[in-house]
Amino acid sequence: MADIETPALVVDLDIMERNLARASSYAARHALSLRPHVKTHKSPWVAAQQMALGAGGVTCATPYEAEIMSAVCDDILLAYPPVGAARAARVATLPGHVRLTVALDSRRAIAEIASAATAAGRRIGVYVELDVGMHRVGVPGVQDGIELARAVGAEPLLEFAGIAFYPGHVRESVGDQDAKLRTLSDALASALRQFADAGVSARTVSGGSTPTLWRTHEIEGVTEFRPGTYVYNDRTTAAIGACEMEDCAATVLATVVSTAVPGQAVIDAGTKALGREPVRGADGEGFGQLLEHPEVIVERMSEEHGVLDLSTSGWQPQVGDRVRVIPNHVCIVVHLNDIVYGVRKGALECSWPVAARGRGQLALA
Amino acid sequence: MADIETPALVVDLDIMERNLARASSYAARHALSLRPHVKTHKSPWVAAQQMALGAGGVTCATPYEAEIMSAVCDDILLAYPPVGAARAARVATLPGHVRLTVALDSRRAIAEIASAATAAGRRIGVYVELDVGMHRVGVPGVQDGIELARAVGAEPLLEFAGIAFYPGHVRESVGDQDAKLRTLSDALASALRQFADAGVSARTVSGGSTPTLWRTHEIEGVTEFRPGTYVYNDRTTAAIGACEMEDCAATVLATVVSTAVPGQAVIDAGTKALGREPVRGADGEGFGQLLEHPEVIVERMSEEHGVLDLSTSGWQPQVGDRVRVIPNHVCIVVHLNDIVYGVRKGALECSWPVAARGRGQLALA
Repeated sequence: MADIETPALVVDLDIMERNLARASSYAARHALSLRPHVKTHKSPWVAAQQMALGAGGVTCATPYEAEIMSAVCDDILLAYPPVGAARAARVATLPGHVRLTVALDSRRAIAEIASAATAAGRRIGVYVELDVGMHRVGVPGVQDGIELARAVGAEPLLEFAGIAFYPGHVRESVGDQDAKLRTLSDALASALRQFADAGVSARTVSGGSTPTLWRTHEIEGVTEFRPGTYVYNDRTTAAIGACEMEDCAATVLATVVSTAVPGQAVIDAGTKALGREPVRGADGEGFGQLLEHPEVIVERMSEEHGVLDLSTSGWQPQVGDRVRVIPNHVCIVVHLNDIVYGVRKGALECSWPVAARGRGQLALA
Repeated sequence: MADIETPALVVDLDIMERNLARASSYAARHALSLRPHVKTHKSPWVAAQQMALGAGGVTCATPYEAEIMSAVCDDILLAYPPVGAARAARVATLPGHVRLTVALDSRRAIAEIASAATAAGRRIGVYVELDVGMHRVGVPGVQDGIELARAVGAEPLLEFAGIAFYPGHVRESVGDQDAKLRTLSDALASALRQFADAGVSARTVSGGSTPTLWRTHEIEGVTEFRPGTYVYNDRTTAAIGACEMEDCAATVLATVVSTAVPGQAVIDAGTKALGREPVRGADGEGFGQLLEHPEVIVERMSEEHGVLDLSTSGWQPQVGDRVRVIPNHVCIVVHLNDIVYGVRKGALECSWPVAARGRGQLALA
């Protein structure tokens, strides 16, 4: 690893492979379709490994992610409202081998994707997004969802393919999680009955996330789940109990650049390397934790500086020392990097580009 | 602007040019050398405009910024400890026309940059960094600084070129700022006398930041200042009184993608477009504020979702509407983008790459 310039995103390949295999086994055991969200890794190389392990397809949030993943995957879900002419057109013109599905929650989105489908001469599946308590996107009312499903069915090139939901609110704690999962499961079962009674049965019910990954089978009716973070995991995933700290595959390799101010050390990983992301839904101070010295956290940051709190540690860092930071939110860290270094048992094995980072936007004017 | 795909970083060129001209006039009026920090724009095109307006050189935080800026600038300061063999080697091997200075605060950094200078056969100027209250990098003791200056002077290819400091703690409020500026000015004047008495006079005294930009001349002894944010400004700069809201040149163009959950609207700018940056050192809720509806803030975010708080607004957004978000911290927003769209009086005029985004790291193994 000595050749890697800091700050750098480093992935332990043994841990990543174990994370991928574990989710794959879980899906097979419960006869669930695993459709990993690529937002976490943004890499066709990693997506290809997910597909080889039995994923039925991948989930994307942006047109650029879908474009990049189309090289290794023939079944893509855009789990994001296809609103805006450019967004709808980009996904509708993905290479022809891709079976495309989008999730949406408005008539405007139906109109835009229908228009793009017509222009591209392409059939597109549609999930109607329900709000099951996250209060982000999705229609809160089942009847509204049924009406959207009917509107989808009225468009010649669109097909109502199922229901999507995102249980991002089911994460805070184990006690809460039990109750929230039961509430969610009951609400979903009721919605599915109403959809069926209305003659718009949902063939696919797509939900799940990394925080609820291992309990997806407890949500009645779910057929497909879309975890993203599980490939690498992070300090938040461990804090909420969805993995152990030793399941965190991704770290930010950093160098101690200053110990001039007494009682602290400064590393070259700040907000531009770690993101200003808290531990979410559980206790956890700071912006990251050292792999080698778990008692040490990144206490505060500037853009290119991370200040380590040494108050609870006997470690005496020297300028030039290198450390690895387990980030609070790995999806943001990946999005900040252009390249990932893969290591195994501490030795550099490979590197790969974060190919779907950014937006793939055009220069104009 | 209708051709721009969202989310996108849009810069109003009239405002940017006014911001650049104003700082340039201020520098000339007070006979200060303006050395803009490129971390905010990461663009050689913008840096060239700063140079054309009289900047004596630029300031960089990373080797990649320095490499990119060397195309348009022959005087570069790396205001970051040149620690780590790769970092030291990269800056020492910048193109030969560049007059290079680095700032440092440790003997280890002196040894590493001296070694890189020898390997490259290059003379390098060195600023000794003093901690004047920010408690990030810099030696807190003046005597320690004098000893570092002497150690620099003992290296054949290094030259003690001055003192650097960063007054990032002088921002909270006007009342505090007055007292903090006086304290800072007094401490600095005392330090300069001690350096001179010790026979290591500081030819250049380099400080300043956007929050203190317009008061740089009140800090006794300062000869050079390094603001970055002033080129675009942001909600924080306005909140702390260092600019007006109408001086914010950079906004994130976003599309309303969902209004399904009552009482809110969701835009396609979340943490991966805005960063999870608070307003710092002043009041200000949320993660950004709408240009067209200043009463509306981005209340919470997911990676690709920004939830607008509509509770204090009469505005009723529709799916498909486009808005512009004034970000809390523009340096982070720029770092998240690959391309900037330049507009004038609402019309697209040009676009340019964020050429120094990322790290310019190598694929290995």
